[in-house]
Amino acid sequence: MNDQIFETVVTTQSPEGVAHVAPMGVRYQGARVVLMPFKPSTTLANIVATRHAVLNLLTDTRVFAGCVTGRRAWPLLAAEKIAGQRLACALHHVELSLDEHLDDALRPVLRMARVHEAGHAGFMGLNRAQAAVVEGAVLVSRLHMLPMDKIDAEMAYLRIAIDKTAGPGEHEAWGWLQDAVAAHRAKAASR
Amino acid sequence: MNDQIFETVVTTQSPEGVAHVAPMGVRYQGARVVLMPFKPSTTLANIVATRHAVLNLLTDTRVFAGCVTGRRAWPLLAAEKIAGQRLACALHHVELSLDEHLDDALRPVLRMARVHEAGHAGFMGLNRAQAAVVEGAVLVSRLHMLPMDKIDAEMAYLRIAIDKTAGPGEHEAWGWLQDAVAAHRAKAASR
Repeated sequence: MNDQIFETVVTTQSPEGVAHVAPMGVRYQGARVVLMPFKPSTTLANIVATRHAVLNLLTDTRVFAGCVTGRRAWPLLAAEKIAGQRLACALHHVELSLDEHLDDALRPVLRMARVHEAGHAGFMGLNRAQAAVVEGAVLVSRLHMLPMDKIDAEMAYLRIAIDKTAGPGEHEAWGWLQDAVAAHRAKAASR
Repeated sequence: MNDQIFETVVTTQSPEGVAHVAPMGVRYQGARVVLMPFKPSTTLANIVATRHAVLNLLTDTRVFAGCVTGRRAWPLLAAEKIAGQRLACALHHVELSLDEHLDDALRPVLRMARVHEAGHAGFMGLNRAQAAVVEGAVLVSRLHMLPMDKIDAEMAYLRIAIDKTAGPGEHEAWGWLQDAVAAHRAKAASR
């Protein structure tokens, strides 16, 4: 397997049709997309129940920062060939069907086949601020495990790329991450 | 102007047809692409002389790491509507014509109109290792201005994303950057 991991957003729905939006690092293995959700997760439960998911490739990093700061209501559009939904902001989406499920106590492996895919907008180039938001979102998802000085040092470093290369979307996403760090600091101080 | 800056590669050629490959941060302003090359630069001289350039949007970060470590011979293909060449690894390329030239002692502004564009491969999703290579390439281009402990700290931080999410291309690019840092250290130690 190529160990390269891409930061994407996987959209699933429950058997009752309730949509779920989750950032996920995925691998490509030939034509298949390999998901390894941690247990327990809504994404895993939905895929096992419905056997379908949508892979969203996007550069709107507000979704990554939003999902780790309690903002999961992103605009969705109906998938074309499966029962499911894709992110409206996806540059490209792939409708997936569960091909192989290797269960595991911690991280099952879901190998997904491509049912359908479509492009919606062009790639505009790499953006350092988008990358900083993604790193910041990873950081915010791990705040409870990290010392405050490491959090501050990393946010200060990432902020350089925000200040130099962000557009309005990355500034908004960065603000959510800063708020989450401030809330964590206040909570830590009150303990 | 939207201040969002995208990391791209601009290919130009001299009036004699000698190709030049240069990483460049660009802005989009409506349908126009805004380049601000520092003076002096081969890219600037070529655009002023030929009035054309090609904007390459890519995720093969070997080109960014390669260009700051002396590797500029990247496979090129002929442009379609202008005299010029594009990177073979571009996901998308835009053939540009000089629309407005605001001269400046340090950084002239070149507003370029789109003559033609074409897509060649799909965007596979954000990749943290690609972002780390881009940051590492920025770092390596500024080694002479930075203290060694800052360089080491930044390389150690960026390496985390390389170890976790790189594919073969990002590992190769990272190796070039590491070699450049090692060469800089050896030169600094011998002074």
